Amino acid sequence: MLQTIEWAGSAVRLLDQTKLPGETVYVEITDERQMHDAIRRLVVRGAPAIGVAAAFGVYLGVRSFGNGRGVLFPFMERLNEVCDYLATARPTAVNLFWAIDHMRRAARDAGRDSRALDENLTVDLIKARLLSAAQAMLEDDKRVCRAIGEHGVRLLEELRGSGKGAAEVNVLTHCNAGGLATVQYGTALAPVYVGAEKGMKFHVFADETRPLLQGSRITAFELKENGIPVTVICDSMAATVMQEGKVSAVLVGTDRVAANGDVANKIGTLGVAILAGHFGIPFIVAAPTSSIDLSLATGAQIPIEHRDGREVSEGLGRQTAPIDVDIYNPAFDVTPAALVTAIVTEKGVVRPPYSQGLKGVVVTSGGGSSSE
Amino acid sequence: MLQTIEWAGSAVRLLDQTKLPGETVYVEITDERQMHDAIRRLVVRGAPAIGVAAAFGVYLGVRSFGNGRGVLFPFMERLNEVCDYLATARPTAVNLFWAIDHMRRAARDAGRDSRALDENLTVDLIKARLLSAAQAMLEDDKRVCRAIGEHGVRLLEELRGSGKGAAEVNVLTHCNAGGLATVQYGTALAPVYVGAEKGMKFHVFADETRPLLQGSRITAFELKENGIPVTVICDSMAATVMQEGKVSAVLVGTDRVAANGDVANKIGTLGVAILAGHFGIPFIVAAPTSSIDLSLATGAQIPIEHRDGREVSEGLGRQTAPIDVDIYNPAFDVTPAALVTAIVTEKGVVRPPYSQGLKGVVVTSGGGSSSE
Repeated sequence: MLQTIEWAGSAVRLLDQTKLPGETVYVEITDERQMHDAIRRLVVRGAPAIGVAAAFGVYLGVRSFGNGRGVLFPFMERLNEVCDYLATARPTAVNLFWAIDHMRRAARDAGRDSRALDENLTVDLIKARLLSAAQAMLEDDKRVCRAIGEHGVRLLEELRGSGKGAAEVNVLTHCNAGGLATVQYGTALAPVYVGAEKGMKFHVFADETRPLLQGSRITAFELKENGIPVTVICDSMAATVMQEGKVSAVLVGTDRVAANGDVANKIGTLGVAILAGHFGIPFIVAAPTSSIDLSLATGAQIPIEHRDGREVSEGLGRQTAPIDVDIYNPAFDVTPAALVTAIVTEKGVVRPPYSQGLKGVVVTSGGGSSSE
Repeated sequence: MLQTIEWAGSAVRLLDQTKLPGETVYVEITDERQMHDAIRRLVVRGAPAIGVAAAFGVYLGVRSFGNGRGVLFPFMERLNEVCDYLATARPTAVNLFWAIDHMRRAARDAGRDSRALDENLTVDLIKARLLSAAQAMLEDDKRVCRAIGEHGVRLLEELRGSGKGAAEVNVLTHCNAGGLATVQYGTALAPVYVGAEKGMKFHVFADETRPLLQGSRITAFELKENGIPVTVICDSMAATVMQEGKVSAVLVGTDRVAANGDVANKIGTLGVAILAGHFGIPFIVAAPTSSIDLSLATGAQIPIEHRDGREVSEGLGRQTAPIDVDIYNPAFDVTPAALVTAIVTEKGVVRPPYSQGLKGVVVTSGGGSSSE
């Protein structure tokens, strides 16, 4: 499988997803400004991958901070500055803030553990711990996605068992919550990859996902690379393939889940959820517990990123709307919990009522929520 | 207003809609092959405009048929050949077949009226009648659209009266059923233009309408040209603007209405109808009676055009999906009558149950249906 993010010894190696599917190009990120830019420009995207990338960004931002007398205070100031700066890269995915908070805690713990050391050694220890923390987060992401895959497969088998028992699981997905949105396996696509390993047969309809076409550019690319049958459709065709009985489950990722189970995800997800509800198709959200934000009572409180209208009017290399026409371009939408059949986390499958179940998985996950 | 189709004395002048919004280019069509190509390539599109264009195509295909002894039989054979050929240009819009049938009838009537004449004069009379019939169809289209506009305005006022009574009517539309889909005024947009003439205020959300972007390229263009406030959104954003309370009515056109009120229209319309139903927003279809096909009991019988997948994967000047990936590209979908609030025809507004009301308007329209 393609590696989205890799620590290459002195730099972070990112697969440049803005170039897919035409070119498979890697970029080396050596400081926090480059990482901020990579996150903002969607070189790296997908909530879990953004979190891991930002964690490395924190380390990159402080690693060359020099030694000297009284270094600890300015170092911690610098660390805070880097953290605050990286947190401005994108607003909706809570994993970004979660990962940065995690790095702040790692630094604080290192500082506490090094009280007997001199300031320069303390700074060195903090730097080392920050790198370890980012690397651990990367490894943890693989483990979490794998676990989501296992739980998701059981859920799909259960839904299939109670349904028509078709040989093939026909999935529709929106945007990219696959391996390229995480370090490996993905969230929404993890059940597909893990299920395929176990011999299950899948066919995936990939919504192209306007305006930035993560579905046709990235989801179709990675499924094809990994040998899973995939058909690209325009977002406007999802209703038709559902009407034609070609979809047995919708699987999507999420950028943030509120305490009541409302789900923020790529613009268009709400529409897909309403269609799935209309046609009686299970609508399943895959969410690492790091995407669950118990500090927000409902989805109405999730900040929604609005992006440049030119992504719509000229995002494809050609002016496709009149110059100066008004364009509305929210990058995410919020699907009410009532439309969500189940939320698959690495701790297990959460079902309605979500306010109970989500608290359960976040509490037992040992601090996955940014609400702390 | 821009003129979509015009008879220029010796050729048909078409606005080349594949070039919008970048260039306003007109093409001259002088024979039936060029017209077939123009319809197939969507130089001219929109069910009513296709009908008028095809009618002129019939005339262009026979106008240079030479005189001679025993000319009538080969002329009629040629006429049938041209009609059959033009009918293959596109499969879904019934107006194409309706218009061609209308031309066949015009020829038959002319033949009957000229029994006393010699064969050459008969052929001349038929040619003249074919040109008149096409010109009359063009004029009739303007009248029909204007009437749809008047009935639609009354319907919008009625819906507004029973609703919140907002000063502005917030319309969402999909694809282009505006002036550029007809000769003038349009069908779905006719109520907007006629209402604006009467001083009503409108704001229109135009779904961009993938894959061919008729919404952002054509609807946004013509609304802007005509001074109506318009905002372009991706198809995937329709659910969000409805959720945000920004839409008071959906207005769309249709390529064919079955006897039970099922409506074929541009791919994505079904999804919009389901969303409108979910949010309790009226879903209104504008349909000249020439789009109503009483010969089909339900929408399941409407043939759906499937187009080249490259419209999806490279339709915008750039490869946006992996090469050779499977693509599904139906150009139309069918919205069940149960999701349709009202159908606005030039004869008045038809409401459920449609099987009664549609029969009423088609019968009183003096032969608008292709079922004859």
